[in-house]
Amino acid sequence: MNKVDLSALVFRQAQEEDVEAIRTLLADDALGQTREDLSEAGLERYLRAFLEIDRDERNVLMVAELNGTVVGTYQVTYIPYLSRGGNERVLIEAVRVRSDLRGNGIGRHMMLHAIRVARERGCLLAQLTTDKSRPQAHRFYQSLGFEATHEGMKCAL
Amino acid sequence: MNKVDLSALVFRQAQEEDVEAIRTLLADDALGQTREDLSEAGLERYLRAFLEIDRDERNVLMVAELNGTVVGTYQVTYIPYLSRGGNERVLIEAVRVRSDLRGNGIGRHMMLHAIRVARERGCLLAQLTTDKSRPQAHRFYQSLGFEATHEGMKCAL
Repeated sequence: MNKVDLSALVFRQAQEEDVEAIRTLLADDALGQTREDLSEAGLERYLRAFLEIDRDERNVLMVAELNGTVVGTYQVTYIPYLSRGGNERVLIEAVRVRSDLRGNGIGRHMMLHAIRVARERGCLLAQLTTDKSRPQAHRFYQSLGFEATHEGMKCAL
Repeated sequence: MNKVDLSALVFRQAQEEDVEAIRTLLADDALGQTREDLSEAGLERYLRAFLEIDRDERNVLMVAELNGTVVGTYQVTYIPYLSRGGNERVLIEAVRVRSDLRGNGIGRHMMLHAIRVARERGCLLAQLTTDKSRPQAHRFYQSLGFEATHEGMKCAL
């Protein structure tokens, strides 16, 4: 594990030039490595998906940058609902930190940043799903105030 | 439990005139009754939230109608992601069936409709969260092909 200076961490919206680095982060993971296409030809699909996200004002793809290098990523989706008298909820997914830098607090800072921005926007609730095979991730989110009150159910279409 | 003729069930996008009926459905529930504001003055907030949903092309609020009466509702959110080479995923939430009509298959038909539309749109995955205090709901979603592979974590902001 490399030590990092967290005060140098910068959070910003992802740009097209970051897509390759984000793709690498998505693949740099026990579950992700079997799902991601790292070929040169595959990049085109990731770029197209990036443009879809980028032009949707309720979807924000973020990167955490350290000394000019992308070291983490997450995506937030703000979702308007009728329930509770109408409100936006923030869904946080696709949270990744570069594997050799995990355990330094980068993920914590990313999540706190996401929560702060969502609160400023007026969101009443944050939600996420995390694979049951990642107990460390559950403890991490619990330490941030998340509670595992719900089943996260998925169905391949 | 009243018997219903499922062949008469119609699914359509919610209109402004449906908001009051949807609000009633959201409150017609063990968890919802403490959260929803059924006052005349409160309706204004639900209407504002409806307009936010209605003008967002990735959010669709649906109603199930039976002989001209709203008997069920759900909301889908199509979310573009970079992972797996770029794809849209459908999130299904705020699923409700009128309490005196539950157990007739209305919910099943609503979900099958949501899944069919999402598949036609090209979504690769459907996901939802369901409160752990509703074991019947888990069995219901499992019977539709959903698996509780994830923790659904929430955090009040």
